[in-house]
Amino acid sequence: MAIHYPNGGLFTTKNSASKKSRANNTIYGKRGMSLEDEINESNKYYLSAGIAVIHKKPTPIQIVDVYYPKRSAAVIKKAYFKQASTTDYNGVYRGHYLDFEAKETKNKTSFPLSNFHAHQIKHMKACQDQAGICFTIVKFVTTDQVFLMPANILFDYWDAQATGRKSIPKAVIERDGFEIDYALRPRIPYLNYVDLLLEK
Amino acid sequence: MAIHYPNGGLFTTKNSASKKSRANNTIYGKRGMSLEDEINESNKYYLSAGIAVIHKKPTPIQIVDVYYPKRSAAVIKKAYFKQASTTDYNGVYRGHYLDFEAKETKNKTSFPLSNFHAHQIKHMKACQDQAGICFTIVKFVTTDQVFLMPANILFDYWDAQATGRKSIPKAVIERDGFEIDYALRPRIPYLNYVDLLLEK
Repeated sequence: MAIHYPNGGLFTTKNSASKKSRANNTIYGKRGMSLEDEINESNKYYLSAGIAVIHKKPTPIQIVDVYYPKRSAAVIKKAYFKQASTTDYNGVYRGHYLDFEAKETKNKTSFPLSNFHAHQIKHMKACQDQAGICFTIVKFVTTDQVFLMPANILFDYWDAQATGRKSIPKAVIERDGFEIDYALRPRIPYLNYVDLLLEK
Repeated sequence: MAIHYPNGGLFTTKNSASKKSRANNTIYGKRGMSLEDEINESNKYYLSAGIAVIHKKPTPIQIVDVYYPKRSAAVIKKAYFKQASTTDYNGVYRGHYLDFEAKETKNKTSFPLSNFHAHQIKHMKACQDQAGICFTIVKFVTTDQVFLMPANILFDYWDAQATGRKSIPKAVIERDGFEIDYALRPRIPYLNYVDLLLEK
């Protein structure tokens, strides 16, 4: 039951707001899971259920020094992280090639283009030219909202950033993308929204 | 001109055979390139020509210890190689998802199944179930012959190995696969043979 002030206004406090937030989060299951964890778990489900084969690519490493101890596995003694030249995730779903990035932002009203490197955009454009399905899964962490943002939105803002703004307004993502409702299995059922993309 | 023995048999020596082999190798360009190098170079060509987007996945690494020096890039101080759970190559070609391994063998008459792990076979089967195009590029290094071997050949021998042989006869690969002729650009024009697979 909602409690009202004598003037009719709804009674809310920071406390009740945080309770609501906690209640919402209950269906998300594990608190504090990163978007990457959530997507990896979703992909695991999709794989085991025979729905799709999507994997996160390993982080590229530049190996400088490897030590081979006798009778045991090689040990990398020195290596550096390399910048990825592609996106993080790809795979196959009902004959379609999927290729996407997953990004979290703490921003409230827009998604900064600085989340991407030029070669990732180039990669996604090349994949789309080959009739691959490209998108970004964007999470606004302050509101726990997750969107599937088709790559064309990203391309439009990326290509205009020299003269335009350096971020994509959340309102545009809400209008032209798809908000993904959290579920139980999989946690982030993004393939439902890929189906909508394919119907377009 | 072929030189014949008085009995009509063709005159061959180890020496002339190796000369022939060397002559063949001239068109391959760089001697001593590994199959992986040759495929990476071919993929680079396919990408730059807008023909396909195929990448080798980074080697998966288990990072144990990372050092973050001030004002410079993170240095991995200890890490191990992990076993890959998928194949080495995947990507998109004219709307098709491609997924493959590249393997060299020094064997002369067969290709050992020990080149694969169970989870790679499982991965390729799952991809094929999603209408992905799966195959292995096999190089017989002693004769410098490269074949595109459709995944079904591998699956058949893999599934029968408990009671059957532990390798795929080269004769079967020659009969049911495609021998890839080396070329200049790209060095290994395997997509020509993917076209044949798609026509089937």
